[in-house]
Amino acid sequence: MKYIQQLTPKEIRARVRKGKWEKPTAGLAMGYAQANLVILPQKYAFDFLLFCQRNPKPCPLLEVLEPGRFRTEFLSKDADIRTDIPRYNIYRKGKLERTVSNIRSLWNNDLVTFLLGCSFSFEEALLKAKIPIRHIEENKNVPMFITNISCKSAGVFRGPLVVTMRPVPPNRVIRAIQITERYASVHGAPIHIGNPLRIGIKKLNKPDFGDPVTIKKGEIPVFWACGVTPQAVVMRAKPELCITHTPGHMFISDLLNDELAVY
Amino acid sequence: MKYIQQLTPKEIRARVRKGKWEKPTAGLAMGYAQANLVILPQKYAFDFLLFCQRNPKPCPLLEVLEPGRFRTEFLSKDADIRTDIPRYNIYRKGKLERTVSNIRSLWNNDLVTFLLGCSFSFEEALLKAKIPIRHIEENKNVPMFITNISCKSAGVFRGPLVVTMRPVPPNRVIRAIQITERYASVHGAPIHIGNPLRIGIKKLNKPDFGDPVTIKKGEIPVFWACGVTPQAVVMRAKPELCITHTPGHMFISDLLNDELAVY
Repeated sequence: MKYIQQLTPKEIRARVRKGKWEKPTAGLAMGYAQANLVILPQKYAFDFLLFCQRNPKPCPLLEVLEPGRFRTEFLSKDADIRTDIPRYNIYRKGKLERTVSNIRSLWNNDLVTFLLGCSFSFEEALLKAKIPIRHIEENKNVPMFITNISCKSAGVFRGPLVVTMRPVPPNRVIRAIQITERYASVHGAPIHIGNPLRIGIKKLNKPDFGDPVTIKKGEIPVFWACGVTPQAVVMRAKPELCITHTPGHMFISDLLNDELAVY
Repeated sequence: MKYIQQLTPKEIRARVRKGKWEKPTAGLAMGYAQANLVILPQKYAFDFLLFCQRNPKPCPLLEVLEPGRFRTEFLSKDADIRTDIPRYNIYRKGKLERTVSNIRSLWNNDLVTFLLGCSFSFEEALLKAKIPIRHIEENKNVPMFITNISCKSAGVFRGPLVVTMRPVPPNRVIRAIQITERYASVHGAPIHIGNPLRIGIKKLNKPDFGDPVTIKKGEIPVFWACGVTPQAVVMRAKPELCITHTPGHMFISDLLNDELAVY
């Protein structure tokens, strides 16, 4: 029997589908893109798609399915969105109702699936360029902050931009920008470097989500748009139903992170 | 009185709004981005937005408005979509019914406006790099061809990719690719260079739309995704109503072409 870390995306999804893996997906299928999940009733679908179109940095769409469809085409040819994510969060009117290991019984033809890029993809590229990633070194969640920057609203969806922060040595900042710029479909270039106050962040050691990380002397805080943004925006709109992946429990695609790079 | 060529986008739109300019917009407001227009009833809006998301090269969205909205936000702060385009085509069930100089009387809260990027923007960049553009030199319409490449379908929208062709001297082809790649929101890099048969084009001197142009000895035909693609796809779906700009009679935005470039 292979360790889960050695399995292909297809093999991992098969395990997940049988209910044999309900844990986070960090470190699995290295090299392959993982995706955030948002499922909404059809009546919200245009507004949410428009929100993503207007805010591509926090909401980098990898694939959107027609109402009722649960099979991906672009990210994988054999995946089933109802079963292939390790854990799902079920929200009613913006409140978490429960988490489940599949959504077969909840599925209906009115539901629209959105899969969005995730910073795991560009973190791999940063590590390959020997740019340290502190929260990985310290085995923590990435620190996330609510900024004073408003997203462009779309229909019922509105709210502030949420960012992740990674401290970068000053002589590596330009390279970090160049690398992540290539990954436009997974948040792309940073939205801000340097003074956190300029984007409304008062205390770097008190993130709104995730964990604080060590910032070494001279390191520059670099801020990237974060996939928590669309989730926060959806919760605020209080749709009667919204299904997401449970944080950290992502959809593992057959697409290589390298295939997401621009060149 | 100034020549129309000397006017700013705002001044041109004011003339268009008063019905004082109903002619093509090529050569006007040089340096500023012009946009293709597609207006559809709300019930088609999600499918069409999804079609654009899945086919960004032929359908580079610059701005999409909520149902009933006729004022742009991103492309201009003071434009009115109902009056600021020199001529409009009104289609019923995929057939051209008539052309008009404003759509005030047709407007209603169910209509959704899509504005898409146009190759005028990257042609300006090619010219600046001294890459010849044959159809401009010969004062013709760009030659357009229906390829054997299927767009990714979305809901009711499906159809082949339509491309434009520009012959490029062999020692300028790489530069032409590099330049247009920067303009992802106006079709971006070419989809094919060289042998037209590989994409189902049999006769370069018989374009499906536009005019044939001279291809000089040694020049390489370079093919870019074309904004006629989404229009053809919409006509094929036969919506009860669709409003577009009359070919060549574009929306002139306040955005510089340079602002559309990636870096």
